[in-house]
Amino acid sequence: MSSREKLEQAAIELITQQGYQQTTAQQIADRAGVTERTFFRQFSDKSDVLFSKTEDYIAHYADGLSRSTADTLLSKVYDVYYFVASTLFKNLHGHAKQRQLIIQSEPALIERELYKAYEVVQFLTEQLSVEFEPLATRLSVQSMNVVFHTAYEKWLAQPNDDAVLADIFADTYHAWQQLNQ
Amino acid sequence: MSSREKLEQAAIELITQQGYQQTTAQQIADRAGVTERTFFRQFSDKSDVLFSKTEDYIAHYADGLSRSTADTLLSKVYDVYYFVASTLFKNLHGHAKQRQLIIQSEPALIERELYKAYEVVQFLTEQLSVEFEPLATRLSVQSMNVVFHTAYEKWLAQPNDDAVLADIFADTYHAWQQLNQ
Repeated sequence: MSSREKLEQAAIELITQQGYQQTTAQQIADRAGVTERTFFRQFSDKSDVLFSKTEDYIAHYADGLSRSTADTLLSKVYDVYYFVASTLFKNLHGHAKQRQLIIQSEPALIERELYKAYEVVQFLTEQLSVEFEPLATRLSVQSMNVVFHTAYEKWLAQPNDDAVLADIFADTYHAWQQLNQ
Repeated sequence: MSSREKLEQAAIELITQQGYQQTTAQQIADRAGVTERTFFRQFSDKSDVLFSKTEDYIAHYADGLSRSTADTLLSKVYDVYYFVASTLFKNLHGHAKQRQLIIQSEPALIERELYKAYEVVQFLTEQLSVEFEPLATRLSVQSMNVVFHTAYEKWLAQPNDDAVLADIFADTYHAWQQLNQ
């Protein structure tokens, strides 16, 4: 494990045990067996350790976009989120669940989580607007963001750690398609 | 004008002139002709003056919900957002445009704006889940939130202050309905 991964793991353990407000960067560094200086070389503040780097995050969506061979807007956007659902969150159910409990405990962390999704939406809308009509692109990307996050919440609510996010995403997309029927 | 409204107006003027970071609560109070103490009796911090109170905000959606006579889920959610679009933002184009430029200049303000929408989505989802199926409810409310915010951005981008948000919302909803056709 890299020192970054050790710090992420230590943060989730500590905050789960004693709460977000009660946990300091120093404590997280101690638990991970590194110095506080190492913590602040990796992260700008305490909340930062709960979120992956924006570039890394966006890179997965960019990767999904470049792999899609779909030629219609909606199926292309679907492919991107399906790719992320089936790669990034594989075998991470337990970890994601613990992290989500922490996020939900602090409005500031919910805000940050929403902003991450907003950055992805902005990125995909820009990329796809080159090829597709801007309004339809914006609505498609935002709709798939909604489907993805609704699926993500359903996934986290599953008692079984074997639950597959990509499958739940596909089902949720189906439910979304039926809203208009 | 109440002291709250004076402070809101003063904040938008000052921040537009000199930037968000450069503007202090004291300066906003001075411009509004009240004391800094009055500022902090109304608002918890500088960013707060750019957002209406959560209860006030939610109350408009609750009002829309109680007025709707629609009996299907999607048309009920549509009615709520249409009501808010046609009342809350009437004759506010110039003001909303200035405010939006400020919000877009600061990630922390974008985060807060996203969180406000999240609170509305949570509220409506809870209210409507009593009557309708939870997954369809969540997807419908979130979809309408997407349609509303896309319409709001289109509205702000109009050069003419006479642009009517409710009309743009209705058109955007129509575009959203066609995504799946």
